[in-house]
Amino acid sequence: MIENKFPGKDISDEDLKTKFPLSSSINSKKIVEISKDISFGGENVPFIAGPNVVENKDLMFKCCEILEKNKIKCLRGGIYKPLTFPYRSEKYFEAGDEGIRILEDVKKNFDVIIFTEILEEKKLNLVKDVIDVIQIGARNMQNFPLITAAAKTKKPILLKRHFGSSIRDLLGSAEYALLEKNEKVILCERGVSAPHTHRASSRFLLDLQAIPAIKDNSCLPVISDPSHACFWHEWVKPLTLGSIATGADGIMIEFHENPRESAVDPLQAIDFKEFEDLIENSQRVANAIDKKIV
Amino acid sequence: MIENKFPGKDISDEDLKTKFPLSSSINSKKIVEISKDISFGGENVPFIAGPNVVENKDLMFKCCEILEKNKIKCLRGGIYKPLTFPYRSEKYFEAGDEGIRILEDVKKNFDVIIFTEILEEKKLNLVKDVIDVIQIGARNMQNFPLITAAAKTKKPILLKRHFGSSIRDLLGSAEYALLEKNEKVILCERGVSAPHTHRASSRFLLDLQAIPAIKDNSCLPVISDPSHACFWHEWVKPLTLGSIATGADGIMIEFHENPRESAVDPLQAIDFKEFEDLIENSQRVANAIDKKIV
Amino acid sequence: MIENKFPGKDISDEDLKTKFPLSSSINSKKIVEISKDISFGGENVPFIAGPNVVENKDLMFKCCEILEKNKIKCLRGGIYKPLTFPYRSEKYFEAGDEGIRILEDVKKNFDVIIFTEILEEKKLNLVKDVIDVIQIGARNMQNFPLITAAAKTKKPILLKRHFGSSIRDLLGSAEYALLEKNEKVILCERGVSAPHTHRASSRFLLDLQAIPAIKDNSCLPVISDPSHACFWHEWVKPLTLGSIATGADGIMIEFHENPRESAVDPLQAIDFKEFEDLIENSQRVANAIDKKIV
Amino acid sequence: MIENKFPGKDISDEDLKTKFPLSSSINSKKIVEISKDISFGGENVPFIAGPNVVENKDLMFKCCEILEKNKIKCLRGGIYKPLTFPYRSEKYFEAGDEGIRILEDVKKNFDVIIFTEILEEKKLNLVKDVIDVIQIGARNMQNFPLITAAAKTKKPILLKRHFGSSIRDLLGSAEYALLEKNEKVILCERGVSAPHTHRASSRFLLDLQAIPAIKDNSCLPVISDPSHACFWHEWVKPLTLGSIATGADGIMIEFHENPRESAVDPLQAIDFKEFEDLIENSQRVANAIDKKIV
Repeated sequence: MIENKFPGKDISDEDLKTKFPLSSSINSKKIVEISKDISFGGENVPFIAGPNVVENKDLMFKCCEILEKNKIKCLRGGIYKPLTFPYRSEKYFEAGDEGIRILEDVKKNFDVIIFTEILEEKKLNLVKDVIDVIQIGARNMQNFPLITAAAKTKKPILLKRHFGSSIRDLLGSAEYALLEKNEKVILCERGVSAPHTHRASSRFLLDLQAIPAIKDNSCLPVISDPSHACFWHEWVKPLTLGSIATGADGIMIEFHENPRESAVDPLQAIDFKEFEDLIENSQRVANAIDKKIV
Repeated sequence: MIENKFPGKDISDEDLKTKFPLSSSINSKKIVEISKDISFGGENVPFIAGPNVVENKDLMFKCCEILEKNKIKCLRGGIYKPLTFPYRSEKYFEAGDEGIRILEDVKKNFDVIIFTEILEEKKLNLVKDVIDVIQIGARNMQNFPLITAAAKTKKPILLKRHFGSSIRDLLGSAEYALLEKNEKVILCERGVSAPHTHRASSRFLLDLQAIPAIKDNSCLPVISDPSHACFWHEWVKPLTLGSIATGADGIMIEFHENPRESAVDPLQAIDFKEFEDLIENSQRVANAIDKKIV
Repeated sequence: MIENKFPGKDISDEDLKTKFPLSSSINSKKIVEISKDISFGGENVPFIAGPNVVENKDLMFKCCEILEKNKIKCLRGGIYKPLTFPYRSEKYFEAGDEGIRILEDVKKNFDVIIFTEILEEKKLNLVKDVIDVIQIGARNMQNFPLITAAAKTKKPILLKRHFGSSIRDLLGSAEYALLEKNEKVILCERGVSAPHTHRASSRFLLDLQAIPAIKDNSCLPVISDPSHACFWHEWVKPLTLGSIATGADGIMIEFHENPRESAVDPLQAIDFKEFEDLIENSQRVANAIDKKIV
Repeated sequence: MIENKFPGKDISDEDLKTKFPLSSSINSKKIVEISKDISFGGENVPFIAGPNVVENKDLMFKCCEILEKNKIKCLRGGIYKPLTFPYRSEKYFEAGDEGIRILEDVKKNFDVIIFTEILEEKKLNLVKDVIDVIQIGARNMQNFPLITAAAKTKKPILLKRHFGSSIRDLLGSAEYALLEKNEKVILCERGVSAPHTHRASSRFLLDLQAIPAIKDNSCLPVISDPSHACFWHEWVKPLTLGSIATGADGIMIEFHENPRESAVDPLQAIDFKEFEDLIENSQRVANAIDKKIV
């Protein structure tokens, strides 16, 4: 072993111990179990798929049927959305508290694990019986009171990295959750703002190098969200396969019955047929590295 | 098809035709054939591997033996190096013109295709009989007189993207080469400077999203160089597998008999054993997407 | 006027009207009046100065005496801090609710306008009688429920730009506040994460170009915070003078009796003597552009 | 002095001595004298102004008359241009070798100091009698053979920082020039590619924080080029005043008789009237910091 492992390393060995005692790689790798079938950090690579927004019951049921058919258990769907500006297109529908009712219906009819983003502590009580995993979105990655409150529910937490934040910052936020004795923390890479590489060509750059970098520094599993990063449905397939081969512990994907009619971000969702093709191809790549899509 | 294909796209459809008539995706996809066996842009994924610097004949011969054993044909090795500052460590050896002699020896003894970076037009004559592919390094991506002079040799050109340049800029540079009626241009992604994602944790961020983005905008093949991007040998394997699955048309890798003793960038090279393991794993991932490592 | 005002402009003229009807430059420039003496957006350039944290009454009183002596009215001081990781050095003291008591004392004894950051809606009631301007910190720039709740108090809002967010995103957040019929919104530039320019040399890059860019797109005043951007006290003076000359509508500065003993970020605060020198020099630069430091 | 001057500093004290022995701040500050009247790094702040391209004799003479009237001595004007793609608009005229003739005429008729960019070593002989300062453009910042050849002429060198390069990289390049025993090296900040701050709103972000950062690390003078950074003529004035107040040792500006008719980059040049207003305002700001525009 060479003396100076990594010159200019952002997170020093001392930092790993003193600043990130719970989230860093001084701990043994954690497998975050969500249900009997679904764990993050082991040999399975769970897909978390669904529409951007919980638009209506019909869409959610159709998505769940596709998930069931493809043996995928984790459903995503936003009910509260941190939109960049406060005006909505006519088409736009923020499910809001009403969306909880739809998700309850979904839960009665399908064996799915539900991931939803929460923006405010005061909504935690409303959603805690229907949601299985609480997502802290990129924009709230350093909303420490929210992270702490979410962690106190003891529900698993999916913590997305902010598009302008370092891995060091991300681990700091994870540390807040772990400090509440909630060990079920999953990290998520969803793109960084580095448009000198793509300029306006896409909104964010999916940082796949973050996957080995996070694994080097942290004991927590890390998943990849290609849809939000690239903002362009045609790139979702190559970036999903690339994420799996790079070692992502899970994949979050947006799909929709009529993607171009999606209430939010209509360019990034793939359709049902593309989704089934994606699962099949993902399974092949996963097998090539001795993993399995679930 | 929706009307506004890609809002805020950096390269408009008009640009594709008027600014990038030769390099853009208005042309049919190009397969760049280097030899009977080696093409970029088709179903094969050539590896280009070797040490950072052509240190000595012994090292080069040993590397070639490993390539031969693993059925890899393309050899890399620098003889001129654009080092950030003009002082060299004692260990450092810039092969310079002397390196050409070593490469001639290599060529007499092994059936390899040699890739080397050129920094100055006036060296082109010296190297043109021994080098098979001329590399234009990232730092010279917009050195237009050099690109033009290199293209005039009719040798294939490997054009690396600058770590601070957009895909639009990269295509502009490719256009200069293609304008010399040299159609053998291969693009290379080797990392962007976006350290707010990794800060000091690594030098560059390998931008795998650039692979589908380039394919969307250009007719040229694009390869990936994980070694220079991540600067850290332990991340080379996941990033190589990720590059292949994302659709890279080739992989450039640094390997060395004693990586930590490498004359330049000793942290990024992998050793012989790791290289053989990498080829085997890469083959599996390539097969999963119906491609083949060569 | 040329036809295509600004090719590739992030915020189109259409956007200005439909997405940012309240915050954009389609409105006439706003002067945000905080008190009889203090307005942002006119010919005065208010300084907002104080320690990072409201450490204790003694420090706050001493700072206020320096402000008074230099005819500066606006005091800053954090009582809640969004620290990157949850562990504190021994020296560190988060004032928390206790800090409110100290600020009440300050208010009884000095004629100052108090700026403090709030992290949670539920603290708004506690602080609303002692705080004059509510700061939404960079990390909460897209915490829309917090912005909305803060705006509803009708207190003036100081909204800091996130280090990874565009000007477009910043205006979107301002729009949320303005929609609550609270017109007293001041924007703040405090550095972006672009370390390929400085790498580890500093934490953030103070984006002075944002000042004319924001003024071009928005009707709101914009101030500059050099201390948090550069993280290095020796650069505070040139960046403050530069901010004023570039057109900043105010300056936020950290100063401390013993900067290197500051409870948080001890490298960025300047001392009392440096502060007085800074005010004098700032006054000269302000005069050169027909403005006045207050 | 605190022990750990600057945690995470990109350029360590050891680096300053071993990697940058000639360019770093271990040397005393250099004043680069170009002529009897014009020096960079002292109390004068020279303006270097002119059109983007040496379009024709008439334009150059008119610009020189404006310079003379305003007591500005340094003229800029490109004869070779590193354009992003090889196609020119009809209007575009690359002066090329012909431009040398125009500059000779200028020199016979006006007492100006001429700054021009050189792209190739082989042009150095052609231009060396007419050009006073050789500019190495951003895109060639790490074209080390060109820097070395230019430095060997003993002409002063203006070295622009690449938009994707760190200050560390810039000093490395300066070191190559200084090693040729040419001490007349002036650095130039001209914007970095950090569009997550402005996205498409402008091409580059003028990094004024680089000015104190460079002065902290280097003994060389550093000037600012607002025109190329912001790409938008309306921002040139605030950014010029900001550059001066931040401590820039000189200013490079594009101006043109009919800016919107400029052969290259028509949006960034200011007109003659704006230029005279800029000089007057710059003088006032310079005076406020005890400097003088020349």
